[in-house]
Amino acid sequence: MSSQGQNTGRRPELRHDPVANRWVIFSPARAKRPTDFKSKSPQNSNPGDNSSCPFCIGNEHECAPEIFRVPSDPNWKLRVIENLYPALSRNIEGPCEEKEDMGVPARAIAGFGFHDVVIENPVHSVHLCDMEARDIGQVLLAYKKRIQQIASVESIKYVQVFKNHGASAGASMSHSHSQLLALPIIPSAVSARFEGMNEYFKKTGKCSLCEVQAKELLIDESTHFISIVPFAATYPFEMWIIPRAHSSHFHEFDCEKMVELGGLLKLMLRKMSLQLNNPPFNFMIQTSPLQVKESELSYAHWFLQIVPQLSGAGGFEMGSGCYINPVFPEDAAKVLREVNLPVAG
Amino acid sequence: MSSQGQNTGRRPELRHDPVANRWVIFSPARAKRPTDFKSKSPQNSNPGDNSSCPFCIGNEHECAPEIFRVPSDPNWKLRVIENLYPALSRNIEGPCEEKEDMGVPARAIAGFGFHDVVIENPVHSVHLCDMEARDIGQVLLAYKKRIQQIASVESIKYVQVFKNHGASAGASMSHSHSQLLALPIIPSAVSARFEGMNEYFKKTGKCSLCEVQAKELLIDESTHFISIVPFAATYPFEMWIIPRAHSSHFHEFDCEKMVELGGLLKLMLRKMSLQLNNPPFNFMIQTSPLQVKESELSYAHWFLQIVPQLSGAGGFEMGSGCYINPVFPEDAAKVLREVNLPVAG
Repeated sequence: MSSQGQNTGRRPELRHDPVANRWVIFSPARAKRPTDFKSKSPQNSNPGDNSSCPFCIGNEHECAPEIFRVPSDPNWKLRVIENLYPALSRNIEGPCEEKEDMGVPARAIAGFGFHDVVIENPVHSVHLCDMEARDIGQVLLAYKKRIQQIASVESIKYVQVFKNHGASAGASMSHSHSQLLALPIIPSAVSARFEGMNEYFKKTGKCSLCEVQAKELLIDESTHFISIVPFAATYPFEMWIIPRAHSSHFHEFDCEKMVELGGLLKLMLRKMSLQLNNPPFNFMIQTSPLQVKESELSYAHWFLQIVPQLSGAGGFEMGSGCYINPVFPEDAAKVLREVNLPVAG
Repeated sequence: MSSQGQNTGRRPELRHDPVANRWVIFSPARAKRPTDFKSKSPQNSNPGDNSSCPFCIGNEHECAPEIFRVPSDPNWKLRVIENLYPALSRNIEGPCEEKEDMGVPARAIAGFGFHDVVIENPVHSVHLCDMEARDIGQVLLAYKKRIQQIASVESIKYVQVFKNHGASAGASMSHSHSQLLALPIIPSAVSARFEGMNEYFKKTGKCSLCEVQAKELLIDESTHFISIVPFAATYPFEMWIIPRAHSSHFHEFDCEKMVELGGLLKLMLRKMSLQLNNPPFNFMIQTSPLQVKESELSYAHWFLQIVPQLSGAGGFEMGSGCYINPVFPEDAAKVLREVNLPVAG
């Protein structure tokens, strides 16, 4: 049973997107009006000063070791550091072990990998969407540089870049930061995405994301990027920023376009914040496995996925992998397209 | 960054289970001791009387239409009704529509399906784990009967049975209930599970769940069932109840074993409640698609999956489909095996 809804005149529909490669239920009977979606747990601004925050400038000694900073002097604008509680360890590398003794022949490998944190700004009160486009561009360039460093380690297969903003979106530190987790395996959602995009390519001879013309799904666009609500968005008001030109690996993308990407990311975050009452959110860079060459990936196209946290998953989603989205993507796109943004910022 | 952890002396490890068919990171650096896991949002008992609850006996007129009740008289013990806000509609059935006009050639089909609610008990204050094994058996038999009814509708491909207990696990009604969602598609997690189990079968000639010998992963067992923490549990303290004999479809399982299953389910729910401070939880029946015959499914084996809600997913999980579990399955199994249950109940 869901919260009381208001029928918008639409009928429920199931959609399958070749990129996400899963079915999503669009269910208007469970929906409020698209403009009524607001976060019930808005993220307030951080206090201006937080002397106990290890991510603040001046507290560098409280952090795990630094990997690099930009610029490389005491007045840094961003830092990339090791995660103090890494999910994977950079200090072990072991062979596959068989775990037959536990009664189920299954694969297990040593938990080797890198888990890094990007401190996006030296000041506690400044969130990513408050920063200027060129500084957000620096954060994106830091992701790129760090992935390029990691790419030299042969056993790493995939790097997941992600940001958790707000406690309910998984952030345990309020100081603006994002993370990279470099994995010795290709995770299942990446395999599924590749299968879906490859299948589309085999059928049509084209890359599914090069083909997106957007139209009703368009939120905004710039010279080299478009932002859309995907056709079969898994989550209400999910947004994708897609480079117009075919590109399989985020970390091989042109440096000079990162400021433009930063500007569009900022715009999307501000629109989301205004329309949805500053919700907790996640963003993820959906890119390609490291060991596959760009030239072999005519079907794979990276994008940046932004997901406001407006509803939780229950047993249905957990069991089936199928999500129920109460907001039709074209309605969400219209609302986001038309958000009246105050000048500048 | 995660909450401060205590290293248990183990190294992180990645495990791949042939059944769930995904990699999971086991990360002791992020763990408390297994016995320290407690829900921070325990589910309190319902008040004994709630005159405004439509699921309570006497308030049947406030509900959507009834499908059946057991027994079929005014003093019912359980009722199966339509969901008042169904995710899919039982009143439409339409052809596939192509959505090319939105700029992305993708599949969309009419949202036909059944979304039903099983009211497990007439009394507001009684939760499933408070009920006697034979009454829980009746609830399981109601799932079976309802799936059998739905199986006659040719366009339905899969029925997901699930229970959300507690608001943060997705329940909007506190009166004990579960749900069935009958889908015109096979959802992605089911396809992935089938691929994984089929691959295992091709490699070994055996069904992956018939092969589970449990040992360190065992929690409990009865004549026809075992309960384990799976080798690559996605979530901390996840539990599976598995029939010992090969069986692909829950709804074709012997009626006379449902009381025994009810008893083991009750035991698992009570152990979880005691050990983890009465957490919100979900359970799901993981079965096989309807249109495939039992005789064709030598690799598919149904099970009941129980997941306490102890931690949320962040951008890493959302982006990669890979989960981080801070509790090693053999540690979780030991803790649950050794829970000291008060007599009876």
